[in-house]
Amino acid sequence: MPFGIKTERRLGQDIMNKVKVGIVGGTGYTGVELLRILSGHPNVEIISITSRSENGVRVDEMYPNLRGAIDIAFAEPEVDVLAQCDLVFFATPNGVAMKMVPELLQRGVRVIDLAADFRIKDVAVWNKWYGMEHACPDILEEAVYGLPEINRSEIQKARVIANPGCYPTAVQLGFLPLIENGLIDTTRLIADAKSGVSGAGRQAKVDSLFSETAESFKAYGASGHRHLPEIKQGLAIAAGSQVGLTFVPHLVPMVRGIEATLYAELSSEADFQAIFEARYINEPFVDVMPAGSYPATRSVKGSNFCRMAIHRQPDSNVIIITSVIDNLVKGAAGQAVQNMNIMFGFNEIAGLEQIALLP
Amino acid sequence: MPFGIKTERRLGQDIMNKVKVGIVGGTGYTGVELLRILSGHPNVEIISITSRSENGVRVDEMYPNLRGAIDIAFAEPEVDVLAQCDLVFFATPNGVAMKMVPELLQRGVRVIDLAADFRIKDVAVWNKWYGMEHACPDILEEAVYGLPEINRSEIQKARVIANPGCYPTAVQLGFLPLIENGLIDTTRLIADAKSGVSGAGRQAKVDSLFSETAESFKAYGASGHRHLPEIKQGLAIAAGSQVGLTFVPHLVPMVRGIEATLYAELSSEADFQAIFEARYINEPFVDVMPAGSYPATRSVKGSNFCRMAIHRQPDSNVIIITSVIDNLVKGAAGQAVQNMNIMFGFNEIAGLEQIALLP
Amino acid sequence: MPFGIKTERRLGQDIMNKVKVGIVGGTGYTGVELLRILSGHPNVEIISITSRSENGVRVDEMYPNLRGAIDIAFAEPEVDVLAQCDLVFFATPNGVAMKMVPELLQRGVRVIDLAADFRIKDVAVWNKWYGMEHACPDILEEAVYGLPEINRSEIQKARVIANPGCYPTAVQLGFLPLIENGLIDTTRLIADAKSGVSGAGRQAKVDSLFSETAESFKAYGASGHRHLPEIKQGLAIAAGSQVGLTFVPHLVPMVRGIEATLYAELSSEADFQAIFEARYINEPFVDVMPAGSYPATRSVKGSNFCRMAIHRQPDSNVIIITSVIDNLVKGAAGQAVQNMNIMFGFNEIAGLEQIALLP
Amino acid sequence: MPFGIKTERRLGQDIMNKVKVGIVGGTGYTGVELLRILSGHPNVEIISITSRSENGVRVDEMYPNLRGAIDIAFAEPEVDVLAQCDLVFFATPNGVAMKMVPELLQRGVRVIDLAADFRIKDVAVWNKWYGMEHACPDILEEAVYGLPEINRSEIQKARVIANPGCYPTAVQLGFLPLIENGLIDTTRLIADAKSGVSGAGRQAKVDSLFSETAESFKAYGASGHRHLPEIKQGLAIAAGSQVGLTFVPHLVPMVRGIEATLYAELSSEADFQAIFEARYINEPFVDVMPAGSYPATRSVKGSNFCRMAIHRQPDSNVIIITSVIDNLVKGAAGQAVQNMNIMFGFNEIAGLEQIALLP
Repeated sequence: MPFGIKTERRLGQDIMNKVKVGIVGGTGYTGVELLRILSGHPNVEIISITSRSENGVRVDEMYPNLRGAIDIAFAEPEVDVLAQCDLVFFATPNGVAMKMVPELLQRGVRVIDLAADFRIKDVAVWNKWYGMEHACPDILEEAVYGLPEINRSEIQKARVIANPGCYPTAVQLGFLPLIENGLIDTTRLIADAKSGVSGAGRQAKVDSLFSETAESFKAYGASGHRHLPEIKQGLAIAAGSQVGLTFVPHLVPMVRGIEATLYAELSSEADFQAIFEARYINEPFVDVMPAGSYPATRSVKGSNFCRMAIHRQPDSNVIIITSVIDNLVKGAAGQAVQNMNIMFGFNEIAGLEQIALLP
Repeated sequence: MPFGIKTERRLGQDIMNKVKVGIVGGTGYTGVELLRILSGHPNVEIISITSRSENGVRVDEMYPNLRGAIDIAFAEPEVDVLAQCDLVFFATPNGVAMKMVPELLQRGVRVIDLAADFRIKDVAVWNKWYGMEHACPDILEEAVYGLPEINRSEIQKARVIANPGCYPTAVQLGFLPLIENGLIDTTRLIADAKSGVSGAGRQAKVDSLFSETAESFKAYGASGHRHLPEIKQGLAIAAGSQVGLTFVPHLVPMVRGIEATLYAELSSEADFQAIFEARYINEPFVDVMPAGSYPATRSVKGSNFCRMAIHRQPDSNVIIITSVIDNLVKGAAGQAVQNMNIMFGFNEIAGLEQIALLP
Repeated sequence: MPFGIKTERRLGQDIMNKVKVGIVGGTGYTGVELLRILSGHPNVEIISITSRSENGVRVDEMYPNLRGAIDIAFAEPEVDVLAQCDLVFFATPNGVAMKMVPELLQRGVRVIDLAADFRIKDVAVWNKWYGMEHACPDILEEAVYGLPEINRSEIQKARVIANPGCYPTAVQLGFLPLIENGLIDTTRLIADAKSGVSGAGRQAKVDSLFSETAESFKAYGASGHRHLPEIKQGLAIAAGSQVGLTFVPHLVPMVRGIEATLYAELSSEADFQAIFEARYINEPFVDVMPAGSYPATRSVKGSNFCRMAIHRQPDSNVIIITSVIDNLVKGAAGQAVQNMNIMFGFNEIAGLEQIALLP
Repeated sequence: MPFGIKTERRLGQDIMNKVKVGIVGGTGYTGVELLRILSGHPNVEIISITSRSENGVRVDEMYPNLRGAIDIAFAEPEVDVLAQCDLVFFATPNGVAMKMVPELLQRGVRVIDLAADFRIKDVAVWNKWYGMEHACPDILEEAVYGLPEINRSEIQKARVIANPGCYPTAVQLGFLPLIENGLIDTTRLIADAKSGVSGAGRQAKVDSLFSETAESFKAYGASGHRHLPEIKQGLAIAAGSQVGLTFVPHLVPMVRGIEATLYAELSSEADFQAIFEARYINEPFVDVMPAGSYPATRSVKGSNFCRMAIHRQPDSNVIIITSVIDNLVKGAAGQAVQNMNIMFGFNEIAGLEQIALLP
């Protein structure tokens, strides 16, 4: 990992302007993670954090880790208050943002949606996978997919950012260098992905209970998961054609972290290590580890990094990529803040310098 | 899961003969698991359990769960004592059994090796992957691979059983029905497997510490794991030709359990559910779950079952099998006892009736 | 642990009569644990298992570990069906059993309530701690507190058993030898107890989510927990007078297990190890470990044992007892089956021979 | 928690001087935690980090979370190099620092020892509990016990800081307000404490394996733990006389965190909540939570906070304090940095602003 180059980005322009920020739906895990990151961000002033169900409850009563850091209570979501913000984050269930975003845009507010409302360009596909009618297809068309490693310049100008899903972030970053360089058979991609339980959110569900998930491991969504079309869309753009992808997510008895093990058949040989390093050399949050490394999710716990490594087995033309992120950071709140930094011209790593907690 | 048929096997002949059993190397996790299972087995009398390092230490001092169940101490391994046994289990590190087995066989003792000494038929391949010279290639040739679902009749007559590895058990059982029926492209198999930490044994290693493995997930052995040639050997026999397999193991922050997610390209369509159910209908320890199920490792924790399910994704010709076992039971000690039951004509499920502990 | 004596009880009379059993409210963790134990019990025939919410659902669909072991579906609770049973277990929320028990008793059915309806003799105290009016104070008076180590002979004749709470079992068994022998100041007892998350049940509650409980530890109920009056009642009977007890429960990030660390001031010196061993020498499920031992909850995981050990610190007149059980077995379903065995004259350990799963 | 007052300390003088720092023994968990914290500290320049066993290995190869953050390799410990530092941290096993500290002091270097070499003032007591002869009793006498909440002004001037143990930090902070105000019977103190497994360090020990500690809970050190005399020493100073303390540590299946549940008999009534809040109102890292709160270890994970709450049970004169810290931060590396900040006149919270990671 080249220190010099990444430090350069780190030392970039640091306009000490403050951006006024609102958070809609701040009670879930992505909400509290946003608060944790934003409360230490030098360019952010949090104006409002909303929750219908917790209206009036102090944020640090619900999340005692924020005691001493955030002096604010949840409020009813009111457009007039949110309209005073420069930027509003939606950390709401799918289908909520698309109903509020049009008015906010009209009133000059930019938006980052951490849910899935603006992730899939094809309205029919979106309607099918999310089981509802999209409320604003025009904005869906306008929205920029917030994966900075692909769309940095579009993000800069965007009014609406569709913050990528957690699995799609880990999977796309792992496949991109291979696809962009035309090195693999894109009709036979396999992504075997594993996530910590926090990915299921903070809803009271039997399936997310400690006693249902601890000391156990299983696949889920193997017959079709909502992140499948999102990943295929991203990879197809990189490939310039439809891709064939099998994607199976699994549930790991840990709180945070996603690991994706990716399999592809090579169509030509190359110095893959060099290709990956070159692809991400200027990316502050993608770390191509030395050949033979095994990125562990704990190496990114609480940080915005995606770490990855390349493997081959003897006499095999299958390339294996293992890619890890913290699902709540690079897979959600951290990537959202990275997008904000790009949108407002802040240092891209502002607020995101935290080193992963290990052990 | 057909109750009737399985019950039939359950109600099979129950000769109340006792077999005299010795265990060499009983201090590791497979050793204590053997003791747990054998101490409740109606046809077993434990004669000796050996450990050089713990010589003289009571077994239940080391493993307090056995207090009240086993009244014996570890002893030095002595051939004269072991020679009094009808059967000796080796729960030793690789390379130990092959040095003692020839003499035991000569003295009429049958052997089940839970390590890898007799798993790979090709001596050159064995030597390469295990980094030593095999001590008795003739016995290696004679040894029977102890996967009852394939070799039941050979096991019955065998003098030496190579008890399969944990990953190979889960992976082979999942692929077998597809390969035996010629339904998949065997040059493009992928097995993405995940194991609990007990698979790494009870040695004091930094990599197996709680603080190194908890709240984290990672791949390992992706460039080539010893179970790769073992699995390929088994699948090649079923296929009648070499197979192309990519096998990546991962470490899960749980104690027990293996999950294998298997990917194969279909070469023809069929009623896969029916084929799987038919293949295993008479197998007391293989449970083909209904289509759409997600076998969780906890559903087999402490039991000798392998549970599996089949999945397909929309518009895809990839078949996905998920297969789970308890690595210490069906993946080691339980399968060894199942083999013993077959070898000595006991009820195949004797000592193995335990229901998985859930939650 | 004296093998001889315990084996004697183990070899006791084994009348091969079958008892017809019903389970009301079998969907929770104590329910599935009852099913796991009873399905391997030689003297039990399960007639009915009820659940209003899961009516018609196969038991092994909800609990796949029971596939192949139990061929039954949940049914509506109907008194006419339950009245055909010899014994009905209630694994229901508090307040349910007391409404059904009177009629069942009238129709000749015996009852074991795993909830708290019959645990506290003083109706006023019961009403206060459980926040409702007791429905049948006369039966409350008649009910026998099902701690076999104290009430074995009463249990034998009882029509209604109040199966003890999990914490009360671990705490009372630890204090009893000291109190019964008048060795400690009973006005200053402290019980610092810790439980795995399964103690909170299988309800969908945010507080029991994996992401809320994993990698964390905390006290709860420190200002007064329902098990406080239950423990005080039991200890007061042993002491012959009111006791002063401080009881603080804690939540441990594990599924099963309770550990209680008990502190008492000595009023006289004695050979405490000998006293404890003598007290429990005939108890099949209480194991007094050697002095200096540290009972770990995993040493009883899945088994009906309570293991305990005694400690002293230098120059201190405080005696420390550490006591462990599996909250779902000796703390619930296992103790219920032990009570059933006593009530119906079965071998007291029938169905309860399982050795703890370790690791 | 009063924001205003704490913010004041936060906004204190921030001399932008840099201090040159060395770390001896940086391979363990306190070492990597020091690196994590110091690498983000505005006033620190790391000159050297030493490890005999890992000499030459890059720090970020051993701890990949530090990739991109620390560009340094482990070196042999050489006095000439360390002598160039303003401050040297010892994160070594007990008994190492005392051999090197005298020479470093002579050469003008200040020292913070994270091990136990300078924690106990009475040499005879130290020798007994640590099983060796102290190498420099004069420096032991001079050393300042680095609990800022007691010794802030002495720390400022100290040449040698004995950084407190993890348990002693949690226990003393909880008892102090009661003892200093003469509110409890100090002859009958009980501290029931629980720690995550990282407290046992990164040594390869069977007892610290995942499979030995996960899904289990137990007491240890109940007959006398090295932190017992350290805690008694601190409480005796506060009380002005010897105290009677029973201290039992326990092992929790989690990586980080200590919880201490403290029991004391009240000698007089008072507004305890107010007394605690007043005691710590100016302490940036002690958070007295509202009455009835249950501090969870995760609320301080990765942060330097100690959070505590007070409880009473009905009709009881026992006061219960629950106190939590992150054993690697406020219990080790974080407190060491807090001490450094005080010693060198930096903002006391510099480098320690991290909010706990939750979930």
